[in-house]
Amino acid sequence: MNPNETALGEPLLRSLLFAPANRPDLVLKFPRAAADCSVIDLEDGTALAEKQAARADLRNLVEQVRAAGLSGPLGVRVNAPDSPFFAEDVAAAVTCAPDVILLPKAEAVEDVLRLAAAIQAGGREIAVFAGIETAAGVLHAPQICACTRVLQAVFFGAEDLAADIGAQRTDRGDEVLAARSMVLLAARASRILAIDQAVVDIRDDERFLRDCAASRNLGYDGKTCLTPRQTALANQAFSPSAKELDYAQRLVAAYEAARARGLGAFDFEGRMIDTPLLRRAERLLRTQSTLGRSSPA
Amino acid sequence: MNPNETALGEPLLRSLLFAPANRPDLVLKFPRAAADCSVIDLEDGTALAEKQAARADLRNLVEQVRAAGLSGPLGVRVNAPDSPFFAEDVAAAVTCAPDVILLPKAEAVEDVLRLAAAIQAGGREIAVFAGIETAAGVLHAPQICACTRVLQAVFFGAEDLAADIGAQRTDRGDEVLAARSMVLLAARASRILAIDQAVVDIRDDERFLRDCAASRNLGYDGKTCLTPRQTALANQAFSPSAKELDYAQRLVAAYEAARARGLGAFDFEGRMIDTPLLRRAERLLRTQSTLGRSSPA
Amino acid sequence: MNPNETALGEPLLRSLLFAPANRPDLVLKFPRAAADCSVIDLEDGTALAEKQAARADLRNLVEQVRAAGLSGPLGVRVNAPDSPFFAEDVAAAVTCAPDVILLPKAEAVEDVLRLAAAIQAGGREIAVFAGIETAAGVLHAPQICACTRVLQAVFFGAEDLAADIGAQRTDRGDEVLAARSMVLLAARASRILAIDQAVVDIRDDERFLRDCAASRNLGYDGKTCLTPRQTALANQAFSPSAKELDYAQRLVAAYEAARARGLGAFDFEGRMIDTPLLRRAERLLRTQSTLGRSSPA
Repeated sequence: MNPNETALGEPLLRSLLFAPANRPDLVLKFPRAAADCSVIDLEDGTALAEKQAARADLRNLVEQVRAAGLSGPLGVRVNAPDSPFFAEDVAAAVTCAPDVILLPKAEAVEDVLRLAAAIQAGGREIAVFAGIETAAGVLHAPQICACTRVLQAVFFGAEDLAADIGAQRTDRGDEVLAARSMVLLAARASRILAIDQAVVDIRDDERFLRDCAASRNLGYDGKTCLTPRQTALANQAFSPSAKELDYAQRLVAAYEAARARGLGAFDFEGRMIDTPLLRRAERLLRTQSTLGRSSPA
Repeated sequence: MNPNETALGEPLLRSLLFAPANRPDLVLKFPRAAADCSVIDLEDGTALAEKQAARADLRNLVEQVRAAGLSGPLGVRVNAPDSPFFAEDVAAAVTCAPDVILLPKAEAVEDVLRLAAAIQAGGREIAVFAGIETAAGVLHAPQICACTRVLQAVFFGAEDLAADIGAQRTDRGDEVLAARSMVLLAARASRILAIDQAVVDIRDDERFLRDCAASRNLGYDGKTCLTPRQTALANQAFSPSAKELDYAQRLVAAYEAARARGLGAFDFEGRMIDTPLLRRAERLLRTQSTLGRSSPA
Repeated sequence: MNPNETALGEPLLRSLLFAPANRPDLVLKFPRAAADCSVIDLEDGTALAEKQAARADLRNLVEQVRAAGLSGPLGVRVNAPDSPFFAEDVAAAVTCAPDVILLPKAEAVEDVLRLAAAIQAGGREIAVFAGIETAAGVLHAPQICACTRVLQAVFFGAEDLAADIGAQRTDRGDEVLAARSMVLLAARASRILAIDQAVVDIRDDERFLRDCAASRNLGYDGKTCLTPRQTALANQAFSPSAKELDYAQRLVAAYEAARARGLGAFDFEGRMIDTPLLRRAERLLRTQSTLGRSSPA
């Protein structure tokens, strides 16, 4: 998986589905869930007493889930850099050769570089996704996102951030809006992908969809998902709608017609259109074309 | 034009009106539109195929619009630093001796310094306004705003930013709130002016006024305008209202009375007033006094 | 007072009550107001003509308020570093040996270090709280918060910030949301306390409580208070409610039970619970336990 080899917006990462490493029953649901990236979680999802056993069984689990038919990108989330599990988790993850290793609670450039060095020492081509989910991580996000080409995405962890800063989560989410925006800006300035916060209310579809809409408005590529149900909703929510596609197609056509008359800015259905709105429409159409190529049965 | 020679808040830049360089019909409406600064646009407003011809005709157009009676500040927006047009645009703009050259998509200090050097090499006194309208621009806004005394304002480009980060524009604008605030903070920390985002819905006066109110609340000095109509609305919206002036005058009077009794903080109509609220009231009254001096017929 | 000697969240700073140094009548109300920290204000609360007299009387006032029964932390706010009063204010404050010296309008690391050096030269153990209340202060907040162990809290000054950047205050407060969040993030990254903005509408309890709720959601530890009435409301608003305590206790119990079954993530009342939500619940319970120990009659 190399989401960066095409222009931003074309690689798809609408859903990043996590399941605990000590829950093979959940991991083996990955093929049916069809997330754009599925993640075996050694970190928060796996209880302290189970971490060693889960790590020892990781290679087996990776083989099982591949045998069960998972063809899409597979990731492993290791424990945080300041935990006692980090070094052994990374060693175990590298030998499993997943597509991605996910680094939680990245707070400094050196956290990412340490992981990148371990991957390189293992002689593998594995991408890194970094979690920005602490105050220090948010403050250093621009430097973290820019530090290595191996880093292909960041994921924003609002629940961990709230725990770190003492915030209370609300439906509107003002308490994390600035951080959520800063992480997105940092990712975009370095042309990497950005996955937005989870919704822990796993049975509240309406809330999840509301949060997907907010994520997409902010510019995020996709959503952290806690269940196959959320995964299906995210895949839908981060795909362009028929109405959006229609508007984009008409706008591009109108722009071509205006350009033929020598105009760079013109009035289209009451809006003044010039380069930025054209770029957004073209991007939407590219995303759709990517979806068309990778469409499931 | 030197908006910095007086204290912040006194120079007026309520409206920054753009017209494409290849649309003399629109440029020649500048005198009647009475924007606080009018801008001939070689960038997004001018189609690719027209850029060279528009540049070749720039000097002529500047002379025409001055002859047509434009007495206020006139600017030229060149193409972005990373475009193939930048160097020739700047050369052409400098020889026209406008009051301002506007640099779109400033992303780094060196972008601004390159332009400032070209202006100085031309031996002219021309101010620079820089557009902050990409993720990298927002992240570097504090350094950009502080880099040279030639830079007298920044303008925030929400549509270009949304295109750069993949955001969808909404009416509330949460998707750009953090960036919009960071640009304003960067401008204020360097004591330069800040012009807020355009509203592309050019026939929706209510939306434009709502966005003007939001801009003003955030602390912006004025608005990017796409039509003479928006210009008139912005000039009104960014001038103090009679009600605001009345409150400010009464507050200042009450403060003087309190000070005479030895008080630095006092209860005025249910609010605890001390230095910051006094400073805001005094600033409003100064703005009004500037308006009075420059009032049109 | 050393709010940092225990883990974050345990020291209480729910209310920071200010009274002008030239108003002994108000200062002597400190013991009854029972703020978590009470502050004699030489800055904005004291009129220019009164500043010297207030400073000369400071030691006397400190002794009086202690004699009147104030046992909790006492602070002195000096004038801003760029004012002509700063050096003499600091000298006077240090000799009074308050628990805290509050530095308004901190804009640079050197502002804080200058004050810390003066305190050290005086041979006292006095904490510093820094006010972040200008554009430059917000931009430099991460560095300011990290610069010295003597700095134990920051307070966010929205009214001063609004005056500095030309913003208009609104009820929702979007105009300062990014700055308010950035200050909190900067404080948390350095593990210091953060006190939120004042509400100048001193007779509008509902508004004050609404703003307390927003502060707490954002993660702030407490509120700047302008009256004993606001102090009582803040002490209440920043203490955990019975409902919150009940939820936290049940969540911790459920987590223990899940862990006993080898689970690190589990479904609790419809929410997917793992480490971050557990940490927040534990923190709430610790706060309550601290409150219990320091409970008033």
